[in-house]
Amino acid sequence: MIQLNFSKSGGLVPAIAQDYQTGEILMLAYMNSDAFNTTLSTGKATYYSRSRKTLWVKGETSGNIQRIKEIHIDCDDDTVLLKVEQLGGAACHTGHRSCFYKKVEDGSIRITEKPVFDPKEVYET
Amino acid sequence: MIQLNFSKSGGLVPAIAQDYQTGEILMLAYMNSDAFNTTLSTGKATYYSRSRKTLWVKGETSGNIQRIKEIHIDCDDDTVLLKVEQLGGAACHTGHRSCFYKKVEDGSIRITEKPVFDPKEVYET
Repeated sequence: MIQLNFSKSGGLVPAIAQDYQTGEILMLAYMNSDAFNTTLSTGKATYYSRSRKTLWVKGETSGNIQRIKEIHIDCDDDTVLLKVEQLGGAACHTGHRSCFYKKVEDGSIRITEKPVFDPKEVYET
Repeated sequence: MIQLNFSKSGGLVPAIAQDYQTGEILMLAYMNSDAFNTTLSTGKATYYSRSRKTLWVKGETSGNIQRIKEIHIDCDDDTVLLKVEQLGGAACHTGHRSCFYKKVEDGSIRITEKPVFDPKEVYET
């Protein structure tokens, strides 16, 4: 049985999703105990949406599911690292491959990549 | 001026430290506004310790400083990604190179790497 420490952030732990082949960091989201156990049992990255206050199977709307390849836990059991296969080519709801497409340069932000898909065509408005 | 959204987690955002050459994820810690600005101005990863409630220059005790190579921000400005040069060969206070040395396998935890240093020799007890 795997025990995570959910006590430090109100029942949640951060979960990093990393491309299992390239090492690129795709996104960070949060998991409660249910989300972690669902991820383990289904093999699909499942998070807890802090805004919607519900479980969220990544890609259930967009089709951009994250297939779990490996799961790692950190030294004090309060952060999860998912190594995933990102279906559909993009993790970010903006259509970018990675959510970390903003780079800090000389005190301002530069956008480092173009979207892979148009969010208006994927999400109903 | 770079504006992060510190409102979702009580004035903090998670910050992921990734080896800038290998892509290995080294650790996750938290930043408040001061920690982020100090990181920007000094070029050394500086976090906020939730337990000690103070700024924490990574490596100030162990010598295992993280030199900043790149800083990225995510789509909704509430997570930071640091691409760093990890001095001393290890990020984790346990002496492991990465904090994510516990791998989930068949419902239990397997330790995937050996420590690089002995924490008893680095930290005063």
